[in-house]
Amino acid sequence: MSYIRKIEGCDDMFLRNSWYVFGWAKDLIPGGKPMGRVVIEQPIVVWRDAQGMLHAAEDRCPHRHAPLSMGRIKGNTIQCMYHGMTFRTDGRCVHMPLMDPAPDVTIRIYPVVEKDSWIWVWTGDCALADESFIPAAFGIDDVERPMKSNSIEYDAHYQLVHDNLCDLSHVDFVHDTTLRQASGAHWSETAPRIQSNRGAIRFQRWFEGADLPGQSGEKVDTWITYDFALPGIFILKGARYPLGTAQLCQQTEPVGLEPLMRNIEQQAVTPISKTRTAYHYATGLIGDTREMTRQLAERMDVVMAAFEEDRQMIEAQQRIWDLTDPATPKVFVPQDKGPHLMRRLIERSMRDEHDTVKATEIQASAV
Amino acid sequence: MSYIRKIEGCDDMFLRNSWYVFGWAKDLIPGGKPMGRVVIEQPIVVWRDAQGMLHAAEDRCPHRHAPLSMGRIKGNTIQCMYHGMTFRTDGRCVHMPLMDPAPDVTIRIYPVVEKDSWIWVWTGDCALADESFIPAAFGIDDVERPMKSNSIEYDAHYQLVHDNLCDLSHVDFVHDTTLRQASGAHWSETAPRIQSNRGAIRFQRWFEGADLPGQSGEKVDTWITYDFALPGIFILKGARYPLGTAQLCQQTEPVGLEPLMRNIEQQAVTPISKTRTAYHYATGLIGDTREMTRQLAERMDVVMAAFEEDRQMIEAQQRIWDLTDPATPKVFVPQDKGPHLMRRLIERSMRDEHDTVKATEIQASAV
Amino acid sequence: MSYIRKIEGCDDMFLRNSWYVFGWAKDLIPGGKPMGRVVIEQPIVVWRDAQGMLHAAEDRCPHRHAPLSMGRIKGNTIQCMYHGMTFRTDGRCVHMPLMDPAPDVTIRIYPVVEKDSWIWVWTGDCALADESFIPAAFGIDDVERPMKSNSIEYDAHYQLVHDNLCDLSHVDFVHDTTLRQASGAHWSETAPRIQSNRGAIRFQRWFEGADLPGQSGEKVDTWITYDFALPGIFILKGARYPLGTAQLCQQTEPVGLEPLMRNIEQQAVTPISKTRTAYHYATGLIGDTREMTRQLAERMDVVMAAFEEDRQMIEAQQRIWDLTDPATPKVFVPQDKGPHLMRRLIERSMRDEHDTVKATEIQASAV
Repeated sequence: MSYIRKIEGCDDMFLRNSWYVFGWAKDLIPGGKPMGRVVIEQPIVVWRDAQGMLHAAEDRCPHRHAPLSMGRIKGNTIQCMYHGMTFRTDGRCVHMPLMDPAPDVTIRIYPVVEKDSWIWVWTGDCALADESFIPAAFGIDDVERPMKSNSIEYDAHYQLVHDNLCDLSHVDFVHDTTLRQASGAHWSETAPRIQSNRGAIRFQRWFEGADLPGQSGEKVDTWITYDFALPGIFILKGARYPLGTAQLCQQTEPVGLEPLMRNIEQQAVTPISKTRTAYHYATGLIGDTREMTRQLAERMDVVMAAFEEDRQMIEAQQRIWDLTDPATPKVFVPQDKGPHLMRRLIERSMRDEHDTVKATEIQASAV
Repeated sequence: MSYIRKIEGCDDMFLRNSWYVFGWAKDLIPGGKPMGRVVIEQPIVVWRDAQGMLHAAEDRCPHRHAPLSMGRIKGNTIQCMYHGMTFRTDGRCVHMPLMDPAPDVTIRIYPVVEKDSWIWVWTGDCALADESFIPAAFGIDDVERPMKSNSIEYDAHYQLVHDNLCDLSHVDFVHDTTLRQASGAHWSETAPRIQSNRGAIRFQRWFEGADLPGQSGEKVDTWITYDFALPGIFILKGARYPLGTAQLCQQTEPVGLEPLMRNIEQQAVTPISKTRTAYHYATGLIGDTREMTRQLAERMDVVMAAFEEDRQMIEAQQRIWDLTDPATPKVFVPQDKGPHLMRRLIERSMRDEHDTVKATEIQASAV
Repeated sequence: MSYIRKIEGCDDMFLRNSWYVFGWAKDLIPGGKPMGRVVIEQPIVVWRDAQGMLHAAEDRCPHRHAPLSMGRIKGNTIQCMYHGMTFRTDGRCVHMPLMDPAPDVTIRIYPVVEKDSWIWVWTGDCALADESFIPAAFGIDDVERPMKSNSIEYDAHYQLVHDNLCDLSHVDFVHDTTLRQASGAHWSETAPRIQSNRGAIRFQRWFEGADLPGQSGEKVDTWITYDFALPGIFILKGARYPLGTAQLCQQTEPVGLEPLMRNIEQQAVTPISKTRTAYHYATGLIGDTREMTRQLAERMDVVMAAFEEDRQMIEAQQRIWDLTDPATPKVFVPQDKGPHLMRRLIERSMRDEHDTVKATEIQASAV
């Protein structure tokens, strides 16, 4: 499957020097059961110690390669529940039954950060892990703008999910009776303004005269801005304004105007393997809190239905790709600008990563 | 798996220049949801336009290779429900949001025919598609001889299903308590007369003194004729006559005699892939209409049970083949004459097809 | 997957010249339905004739390679239920419909033995099949010491199951709330004495001051001895003695002393394929019969729960192995002595088997 153009000398399908969303921070409780997941084919375990601090390590006990995620947290250690080998949070083995001292062995520790309600793990060279690379999101626990969250998995290559997020014209078709109707807009009839910018792509657009759902005949102007950031983060802000605002703003960003209501979306695509992908998403509304609570529950139903629609379409698309000679051409249309920029962004990043690794190797061999 | 002898220079497992049964015509309604299926590893979509006319195309939108079978029919077009690309029934793209004119692209159209209640698609060179090649069947909607129909799938190579149909001695064993009992005959104790004839194999036989099921002790002579036609069509006619008729006819076909009752079977084997096969079948009785209606419902129960027996045997056989060195010999017995002729028929047809393709290539390169 | 060190010139993953446990003898009734299972990738059918005698053959009819396990037993023959080919218990074909004489063909017969409630099949060179190689077990039908039995399957390589049985320190972790509690002992805190001896490994140990489960505060000394024998048989005997007995015996085997109670375990690991493994186990208690009956039912619940715990751990371990470069090192700890001896035992046996086959080939070519 030729999802991205091959980088010369590079066999990899995944960016490694990246922060990936591992899951929702709320799903791990202090001292509770650790969580094991596979990220870009690497088994990783994440847990909180008794103080609530996050830790991440390879999910593989160096003794017999059993998963540490089936283990238990004891104070500041994680213990493999196959034969009892125990590790400190710096990866060092500190206990093995019948051995004193404990064997001189460590497990790989992953940089891990909790930010905006997500757990982020860095899968590449630790020396390069810089938290400032983590793209900004909202977080789901802000009482001013509560969000509802969920996680699903796709039987598809992650780039097919990226494609989906970088071309929202599909809302009119895949989500005809869900998100399109809830948005009151027609997503395929006008094109967003797209700008590429250092590891991210920004999409902006006005929908003039959009329907206000549930209010028959009422019209609004809706401003939408969304960002796709590496390795697969999608952040959307929507805001509804009185009819005529788009013209008033000369079709540009409405600055300093108070919208009638806002919605926000926070989504992350994390490759599990070449054939399976995790998707962690949340949706929120901003406005009068009591009214919003009811509306947010309704919206979450729509969003969950819509992502099920995406899952069905993308998995069906994957099955067709599996039956298709990779050399079979695909027609390029204006809507592909976003997916195309995303693909070039990944290719460029993979090339950078490849060159960095090679440079490091040359440096190492010179020493 | 060496199901057929390899044709030199030919990697293929399937006949391509063939009419395959795609499914039952009744399952598509005018302007309704299109149907996507895989035939010999080709994803194909079939739909009816508002006038009820059938159309078939590759089930792959040329934009992002999403399946058109998840699309919708709009008048005389089919629209991909991923991003809205729309095609005429001649395959030409006539609409893409944000593009005017629409992109100059077409999808592959498959010759498609409705005949005898089946939808037939031609998977090879369109120039060679000739409807007269379609073998005759009965159709299930004839009020004089109504049939009941069903479709199932096997986790097995299609040739193992062909084998099953070309050697009905298995009725005595696989269908001991179902079809054998319903037939009142012993299928393994005598051999049918077998003739091979231009893309088809005809089997004919008398069962003398067969039991009339449900009528204790009553005996009849039963004449059975069945045809296996490429690429996998099986048509059977059975007729019960008074005891002694076989002798009266000197063991040959009873011409001009009115039978006591008749049954008919219409079956199609369509390869999905090398490991999965579709099976579309119907059964019918001919006689006094009211009585037949009740009996037909009972017969359909027997037939459905019997084909479940076949499925279990053939899938179990496939699992043994998967565990077996393909070089392991198989014992040839008289019962294999039918399967052997079928195999030679397919080999010859594949060789013809291979030679035709080569000849076309030589011609093309000479031009 | 590098589960064992490769034997030079030998591609095999399995010992062949071995008696494998096929299943429980009680599951086959005289003249009843034959049973088909896959042992080291070989499809095998076992049945009892009308006299109750066991027979084993390749589960593959030489006609069309359908499984004989879907066939039926007729007197002293087994008949394929696809087309009726019938075989004597010496493998010779004695009947085929429409053929007289029957075709001159035989199926491979496997040496098969019923011993200690198990059915054993020999998968290698018949000339080498010697029943005295079968390791001793208990049998589940002895009225003096009744056992309860079960069979499960693992999605894992058989050596991961062997590892599990050869290092019972895992009882403290995997079976913390089941077997560990039921044993009243701490399995990871002391090491057993381990001796390797001609195709088997013996483990022996005292647990001093173990809890007597259900009797709060009461303490006993428990003597455990268990054997792992090729190709994957595990036999355990446990006996509880009054506190102080271990000291009295100077930590050696208690000879001639009557224990308070005993338990016995009989387990067999049989590879199905490189990725799937069968596990046939039984548990028994020895003591006052009426009281034991109730306790045995309870114990069987604990044992079944424990082997489900093993299954979850071992299958999770297998998934990690599947994601791991086989060159990744594993830390060797004292607990690995048992698994290590087991691995060396298998390697040595595979080398012997390989040399035997080569010697036979040289001898054959010299003749």
